[in-house]
Amino acid sequence: MVDAATVAAAMRRAIAESADSQGLSSPNPPVGAVILDELGEVAGVGRTQPPGGPHAEVMALREAGDRARGGTAVVTLEPCDHTGRTGPCSQALLAAGVSAVHFAVGDPNPAAAGGAATLRAAGVDVHESVLEHEARRGPLRQWLFQRERGRPFVTAKIAATLDGRVAAPDGTSQWITGAAAREHAHAQRARIDAIVVGTGTVIADDPALTARRPDGTLYSHQPTRVVLGLRDVPPTARVRSGPSPLLHVASRDPREVVAALPDALHVLVEGGPAIIGAFLAAGLVDELHCYLTPTVLGAGRAAVDDGTVGTLADAHRFIRTGTRGLGDDLLVTLERRD
Amino acid sequence: MVDAATVAAAMRRAIAESADSQGLSSPNPPVGAVILDELGEVAGVGRTQPPGGPHAEVMALREAGDRARGGTAVVTLEPCDHTGRTGPCSQALLAAGVSAVHFAVGDPNPAAAGGAATLRAAGVDVHESVLEHEARRGPLRQWLFQRERGRPFVTAKIAATLDGRVAAPDGTSQWITGAAAREHAHAQRARIDAIVVGTGTVIADDPALTARRPDGTLYSHQPTRVVLGLRDVPPTARVRSGPSPLLHVASRDPREVVAALPDALHVLVEGGPAIIGAFLAAGLVDELHCYLTPTVLGAGRAAVDDGTVGTLADAHRFIRTGTRGLGDDLLVTLERRD
Ligand SMILES: NC(=O)c1ccc[n+]([C@@H]2O[C@H](COP(=O)([O-])OP(=O)(O)OC[C@H]3O[C@@H](n4cnc5c(N)ncnc54)[C@H](OP(=O)(O)O)[C@@H]3O)[C@@H](O)[C@H]2O)c1
Ligand SMILES: NC(=O)c1ccc[n+]([C@@H]2O[C@H](COP(=O)([O-])OP(=O)(O)OC[C@H]3O[C@@H](n4cnc5c(N)ncnc54)[C@H](OP(=O)(O)O)[C@@H]3O)[C@@H](O)[C@H]2O)c1
Repeated sequence: MVDAATVAAAMRRAIAESADSQGLSSPNPPVGAVILDELGEVAGVGRTQPPGGPHAEVMALREAGDRARGGTAVVTLEPCDHTGRTGPCSQALLAAGVSAVHFAVGDPNPAAAGGAATLRAAGVDVHESVLEHEARRGPLRQWLFQRERGRPFVTAKIAATLDGRVAAPDGTSQWITGAAAREHAHAQRARIDAIVVGTGTVIADDPALTARRPDGTLYSHQPTRVVLGLRDVPPTARVRSGPSPLLHVASRDPREVVAALPDALHVLVEGGPAIIGAFLAAGLVDELHCYLTPTVLGAGRAAVDDGTVGTLADAHRFIRTGTRGLGDDLLVTLERRD
Repeated sequence: MVDAATVAAAMRRAIAESADSQGLSSPNPPVGAVILDELGEVAGVGRTQPPGGPHAEVMALREAGDRARGGTAVVTLEPCDHTGRTGPCSQALLAAGVSAVHFAVGDPNPAAAGGAATLRAAGVDVHESVLEHEARRGPLRQWLFQRERGRPFVTAKIAATLDGRVAAPDGTSQWITGAAAREHAHAQRARIDAIVVGTGTVIADDPALTARRPDGTLYSHQPTRVVLGLRDVPPTARVRSGPSPLLHVASRDPREVVAALPDALHVLVEGGPAIIGAFLAAGLVDELHCYLTPTVLGAGRAAVDDGTVGTLADAHRFIRTGTRGLGDDLLVTLERRD
């Protein structure tokens, strides 16, 4: 028997491990798993591999080897019971001789659910809802959202001065924020499925929209690049070359972006002001990341343009979920207030 | 002999006590004093009274009475040695029989300085620079600034949405921020000498510009109300009635506001956007208080209007000194980056 504190520590490790599957696992959930041996020692850690590859439980079992026998599996999501491109995880856990399974979130997918029942029927001691709230707020969040709402979770990013400007009157906008904020924003890009900008930003700034480390090297995962707007993407635009596909949604309707990304779990809207405004007006911003730099411009382009707002009562309302310093800048994260 | 920890605790208490003199003591410094008896127990606490009233040391000595004899005085500023409207504090301390004096900040005023020397000459054990940095950053800050720069310390306040808007397109602007932020802003008004707005704000919003508690009652100290701009202040404007004077600076030059307030230590510029911009452009914003509410408007008036800024390199730069939640809102405080 493994005690509750050991299981909780293993679950937190599984949650942390799963973060590295965000963006790569889509459309599958980024799951994390830890195998504890009979004595409660960590014997294996795993996370979901890209589609077609093994699930988290199988990765962790491989690492654990024989130490899994009589041990405990700790998984962020209920083990699957169906044979898709990979065999069912419930069978892999049984074959490895695991005697207990703790999972955080029950599988909401009717085709995949049932792992718990199968394991129980085979005599495994199954515990559900272990640190469920933490796991739901973690890397599984966007996948759970997509299951419930049938569309990806959308984060909008604003990088602005304290007075809400993203460019000076002469158009200069690089760099509004400092190195630490840019590094954070690039790490975020490496965990999402798609990044969206408008034709205006492509034409004005010609961004690459890749996820890069501070030394300029590319992260292994690169988001799909999406450009929204009726104008053509210039033939020489940097978004046309590089490591990930370009999707030009020749429309002015943000809903068409979402519809064009059926497998995406998490989409990041990076601007410009008109595109952020259009997503807000369409009710398509679930989360807001505001990088605020400690300067005041007093002139220049505002961070958000939404022609649909007339009066204060129409304001788009959010709930603050976090505030942290990034070098000289401040990152305020917020969620939609439903 | 009183130990260093007891002195430090007494100095922190003196600093805290002096905060209640901010705004009331001007043009004198808001000083705090604590008298410890021979055993190191707090025997008296005092702070500077309004001009013409006793200084902090005298207030604390009155409360201590006979317990001051052989005791220790802990004061945020060097005791004065000159006979102004009140007698010199050095003499009051000697008369009370205090055997030791600890102070934080030496008096930079040549006419007032010399208290330490007089006390030492009389055999008192005098310690200077006790928690000096903390005291300089505390309520004495604006007075020290005024001594050095010959003008009051100016704080500009912005209350805006996350995207830097202070009003919706239809002009609605009440309330951008929530009750906790408004309460904090009113408490701030009760500690300053003067509050400045432009004719635009007076005409658009007709604010009272008084310092009120959440129940609507007035704080005992009320700042002088200053309106900057060429247009008349309407005869029925609320700033014309109420508890404190109105000063109409019929100009567009923020320097004239500062010149019109020779006794002020701390001036708060509350807006609107054009006035904040004018103070920024004139290099007259020493501190910024940004109350940010977790909403996005995407349209409406920007928080700051400064026509002098053309390119990103012209941005007014600040250093973040604090971030705190006030209900749903966030207060970010910043200082000028010199
Ligand atoms: N600091 C930041 O976070 C940040 C990020 C990005 C950009 N920026 C700055 O933003 C500026 C560019 O601003 P922008 O507003 O032109 O760029 P944008 O928002 O990227 O693109 C605007 C264009 O998108 C198209 N569009 C598609 N759907 C729309 C809709 N529903 N409503 C309105 N337009 C729609 C329109 O072009 P079509 O005619 O082609 O349809 C429109 O002109 C640049 O200065 C850039 O530096 C800053
Ligand atoms: N949320 C907040 O923190 C906050 C605070 C205050 C106001 N507001 C909002 O701001 C809006 C009013 O904006 P506003 O810009 O008209 O108000 P303002 O900044 O209070 O006043 C602007 C006026 O001040 C005068 N002025 C004096 N010196 C100036 C200078 N150097 N440059 C430019 N103008 C100068 C001009 O009028 P003359 O022709 O008379 O010289 C100008 O029209 C209202 O909607 C109000 O609700 C918001």
